Amino acid sequence: MASKKEVIVGVDLGGTSMKALAVDKKNKILAIGKGKTPAGVRPQVLIREIAALVKTAIKDAGCKLKAVEAVSIGAPGPVDVSLGIVREAANLGWKNVPLASDLEALLGVPVVVDNDVNVGTLGEHALGAGEKVRELVGVFVGTGIGGGIITGGKLFAGSNGWAGEVGHTVVLADGPVCSCGRRGHVEGLASRPAMERAVFEAVKAGRKSVVPEILKERGRDHITSSIIKAALARRDPVMQEVLERAQYFLGILVANVVNILDPERVVIGGGIAERLGEEYVGPIRRFAGEYFAHAQAAKRVQIVPGTLGDNAGALGAVVLARKHLNL
Amino acid sequence: MASKKEVIVGVDLGGTSMKALAVDKKNKILAIGKGKTPAGVRPQVLIREIAALVKTAIKDAGCKLKAVEAVSIGAPGPVDVSLGIVREAANLGWKNVPLASDLEALLGVPVVVDNDVNVGTLGEHALGAGEKVRELVGVFVGTGIGGGIITGGKLFAGSNGWAGEVGHTVVLADGPVCSCGRRGHVEGLASRPAMERAVFEAVKAGRKSVVPEILKERGRDHITSSIIKAALARRDPVMQEVLERAQYFLGILVANVVNILDPERVVIGGGIAERLGEEYVGPIRRFAGEYFAHAQAAKRVQIVPGTLGDNAGALGAVVLARKHLNL
Repeated sequence: MASKKEVIVGVDLGGTSMKALAVDKKNKILAIGKGKTPAGVRPQVLIREIAALVKTAIKDAGCKLKAVEAVSIGAPGPVDVSLGIVREAANLGWKNVPLASDLEALLGVPVVVDNDVNVGTLGEHALGAGEKVRELVGVFVGTGIGGGIITGGKLFAGSNGWAGEVGHTVVLADGPVCSCGRRGHVEGLASRPAMERAVFEAVKAGRKSVVPEILKERGRDHITSSIIKAALARRDPVMQEVLERAQYFLGILVANVVNILDPERVVIGGGIAERLGEEYVGPIRRFAGEYFAHAQAAKRVQIVPGTLGDNAGALGAVVLARKHLNL
Repeated sequence: MASKKEVIVGVDLGGTSMKALAVDKKNKILAIGKGKTPAGVRPQVLIREIAALVKTAIKDAGCKLKAVEAVSIGAPGPVDVSLGIVREAANLGWKNVPLASDLEALLGVPVVVDNDVNVGTLGEHALGAGEKVRELVGVFVGTGIGGGIITGGKLFAGSNGWAGEVGHTVVLADGPVCSCGRRGHVEGLASRPAMERAVFEAVKAGRKSVVPEILKERGRDHITSSIIKAALARRDPVMQEVLERAQYFLGILVANVVNILDPERVVIGGGIAERLGEEYVGPIRRFAGEYFAHAQAAKRVQIVPGTLGDNAGALGAVVLARKHLNL
């Protein structure tokens, strides 16, 4: 049992679920806590749930609160890191929530907060597919598409902490409407919901697909990474086409980002990348290669899947805490 | 007459013309030299022409070569700044030309080189529309569209010195072919040649426009910034529509860049911005405002025309020399 102050708890706070990892000083995972994010509750109620999840993870790790050096959280929206305030989190209905100070009051340990995709990028950079690279971009594809930028080995925040909003860049002017209401964003073309919409539309238009059958078998009504994988395993032509179109737009996004930032490596993270690996990233790399401003970029920049999978956010939060608190 | 070593010559080396500014230690312009860039000559021949232009500017400034601390050049392509080598300049037919060392051998003074758009951005940042801003992006529109990034008050190069290639980012997947051969780049949609092509196509399709008349009056066959301005002054509907479409795509580009980099300010430079000023930048700002990921960005980020006009490159080269040689 760890008794010295050497445990950090990293929390990935998502719109539908949350996850807490208790790790030791070598970042070895001691315990994993998971929970549903309660919907439609006041910030204070959700923050109490986060505190309870953190306490459970600490208990499962076989240690006490006094052994915890810090709790660190990736939140789904822009964050004022120095104040520990979540500026906005549409999925949670949050605006200007002082998450760090409120959680500190409940737990009595230092709390650090940053944006979920920023911490995911930090995690992949320090502990995953980004090791030893100083110029890196993380692109996370799931319900949305988010990005994090590492430059000079450090997280790049921009002037307001808003840098890295790659999902809301336009790749197809006047294209389909994104979740944010604007047209032509890559998130509206290549996120998991965008793919789901395209599959359902094809089926509605009379195309044959095994997806409805798989959904029925599993009692689901949403297309998850695992359902995409199952449909591909059965060589479903609709799923193949829809995936390839998403990969095309993601390839363009990656090329745009490479042309603007010239990183050494781009890490593709999120559920689909975790589930499909190279089958997902390979075509993205190939499409991107057709759009580099510098032909040599194709030989230099590395486009790889993340290696931390679903733990990227919580582990990245741990890395964030170490950086901020000099641990 | 300056006799102490306190003159710097900044050179803007373009594909069709070149310009040298001799400045004193307060960046006051002492003399301006201009010349055509000779086409189809060997690099050595062009470098001798650059040396001659520099010498003329020094002479016109009323000083001698021994009063010159440094010569600094913005070159039209990617540059290895530490080696002073122009990696590639398609307009000049250059590949791996050791411009700094060759010119140093001819002039006997230190020579510094960087990419033309990078130095233009440096110039606007230090001496023009970017003063005191630490996070800035320069977007220069002319024959091509290029970008430079200042972050933490310094020029950002990326891992290979290729950062800032905003003109070759895709904003309209499968759109028209760019000068580089790829589709959908903003350069193929909003550069001066892209606008020219659109005007000529409209005229060919039977639309009425004063542009052919203006071209004839002036004995020109290309649409310059001054011809755009003249056509707008005569309320030419074709010119107005073509300009607005270019502004739309530039607005999307600016929004993409803001969403990725979150700068405090975006400076729009180049010949059209210089000639039209707010008439050009106003609609770009308005279109960009429709595409920000963070609604507050519209209030915070400043999108402004450059103030150095055609001198941005040569003055930026001077700033570059001061930074590199600690002057």
